Amino acid sequence: MENSLISVLAGKVQSPPPIWFMRQAGRYLPEYRELRSQTVGFLDLCYDPSLASEITLQPVRRFALDAAIIFSDILVVPHALGQDVGFVDGEGPKLSPIVDEADIERLELSRMPEILSPVYEAITRVRQELSSDVSLIGFAGAPWTVATYMIEGGSSRDFASVRRWAYAAPDKFAGLIEILIEATANHLCSQIEAGADVVQIFDSWASALTAEGFQRWVIEPTTAIVKRVRERCGEVPIIGFPRGAGLGYLDYANNCDVSALGLDSAISPDWAARVLQPLIPVQGNLDPIMLLAGGQPRDDAADRILRVLGNGPLIFNLGHGVIKETAPEQVEELVQFVRSWKREEID
Amino acid sequence: MENSLISVLAGKVQSPPPIWFMRQAGRYLPEYRELRSQTVGFLDLCYDPSLASEITLQPVRRFALDAAIIFSDILVVPHALGQDVGFVDGEGPKLSPIVDEADIERLELSRMPEILSPVYEAITRVRQELSSDVSLIGFAGAPWTVATYMIEGGSSRDFASVRRWAYAAPDKFAGLIEILIEATANHLCSQIEAGADVVQIFDSWASALTAEGFQRWVIEPTTAIVKRVRERCGEVPIIGFPRGAGLGYLDYANNCDVSALGLDSAISPDWAARVLQPLIPVQGNLDPIMLLAGGQPRDDAADRILRVLGNGPLIFNLGHGVIKETAPEQVEELVQFVRSWKREEID
Repeated sequence: MENSLISVLAGKVQSPPPIWFMRQAGRYLPEYRELRSQTVGFLDLCYDPSLASEITLQPVRRFALDAAIIFSDILVVPHALGQDVGFVDGEGPKLSPIVDEADIERLELSRMPEILSPVYEAITRVRQELSSDVSLIGFAGAPWTVATYMIEGGSSRDFASVRRWAYAAPDKFAGLIEILIEATANHLCSQIEAGADVVQIFDSWASALTAEGFQRWVIEPTTAIVKRVRERCGEVPIIGFPRGAGLGYLDYANNCDVSALGLDSAISPDWAARVLQPLIPVQGNLDPIMLLAGGQPRDDAADRILRVLGNGPLIFNLGHGVIKETAPEQVEELVQFVRSWKREEID
Repeated sequence: MENSLISVLAGKVQSPPPIWFMRQAGRYLPEYRELRSQTVGFLDLCYDPSLASEITLQPVRRFALDAAIIFSDILVVPHALGQDVGFVDGEGPKLSPIVDEADIERLELSRMPEILSPVYEAITRVRQELSSDVSLIGFAGAPWTVATYMIEGGSSRDFASVRRWAYAAPDKFAGLIEILIEATANHLCSQIEAGADVVQIFDSWASALTAEGFQRWVIEPTTAIVKRVRERCGEVPIIGFPRGAGLGYLDYANNCDVSALGLDSAISPDWAARVLQPLIPVQGNLDPIMLLAGGQPRDDAADRILRVLGNGPLIFNLGHGVIKETAPEQVEELVQFVRSWKREEID
């Protein structure tokens, strides 16, 4: 059976398009909440191959999606580099922030393979469970986005500390970014070797940079990672997701050598169809709030994306992760709607 | 003496460009902190014509800027419409959130002129104090941005409630937006009548919308406000600031009939010079973190903006407000740098 997602990533048009959702495994699913209630910490879940593979498979079983994405977190990389990383329920991640060059020098690439081996083990298990028409997606945070957490010590509204490093001490900041380029390339390659068919690079806070900063701290590091992954692991499909990049998406598409672009919900499908999709397959970009709200507005919005982008290479997805208050029935309805799209056109 | 800011807003090129800063009055200034320590609440300051006018003038005296912006807040409009609005130090604004249509129906346009009269009185006093070459800027929040606070009850990271209203119950949400269009037009006109030479419309959370939502909840309401203000108050200059709009800036420039565009720091000066500035004067867009960091990186970044945008109609500003930890000496240095730009070119 043909793998729909891989086909689109090779530039072919599928109708209906393949569909999966960012954060498709997680708290909105009762089976996840039940499993979660038995364990202690979030990182413990990520590092337990049995639990992580089970969580990864939950949404695929429930919704018959075209891809699974390994249940993990972008902060396993700083954790594996030696930074203290914790997750407090309801408060998001907490890290012992990097405050000077000595903190950067203490980061260790050498211990990563061992610390992250449970993630790769989970990937191997999931790949064995999935049928060949379902893709398995590995992922990592992009260096800029991971650096925001490493320097701010968690989520941030204004990114004041990390931006100050990036702009006022760019040479020091480049030292951290270089470590993250290598760590990220290693982590993506190991996921591919373990069984991931596709990898996605999440640059969730690309929007916090000036145009010049975007060039230096998003485009250049991503280009370097893609180059290293392709050199070491061959022509594996790589989806780049520079969330909130606006016009920057075009530079990103033209420079980073990714296989597809993840579009956030602010990107106009019309602009994407006209400017981006002729260059590269796209993925997205229903607003997760539409999935939460459901009903006719959700179907209208999905229909617009399908009509505008569905005639080119498209992976249907959200523009950001599933919101935890979303009802699973809403997800089911959306999947059915997208799956039935082609048939409606033919009728 | 010619008024440099008004001249740029009429499409002329000034070299060096006029300069002012968003949030130029406030906590980074010791004279503000001293005055603030004597009073109780933030809204009390906004509604005290003597204090508000003094605070407005502080940065103009210190830095000899080309414009004063009245010391006030975008949330005086929901407050004057009857919503509970409070400011807690260090926590930002807190509002009793609007949860249903009954809450919208309770909003009252009729009491606004009386409640906001101290703001207009402060504007009149400031205008009397300023010399004719310094402009006085009035302002208001755009309906979408003000609605985010009214429905979320304060600042928000994901804007889940307001976006759900906007997308899933657009007719009800339109009722709130219509009230805000009228309230905002009234408030801007009253500021102009009181002595404001220019008004700015802040749409600080424009980035939270899809392209379609941006059209309906940013462009359409802003266009309606500009039309009403121009009908009632004549051809006063209006600066529109759809922060984070990315590509949406072009639609905004083409549709809203504003006199100038405030650019956030993510906008590439090159793109703005090529695409936006031929249509409309621009204002911006140094990253406030550069002003905080200071030194050579700040001057390099300012120089880039001046070189790329300074040959067209430009108002030099930040891409967002002054960060409260900024040293006043850094502001002074930047003003000197911008003021000396033309001379360096001639040498």
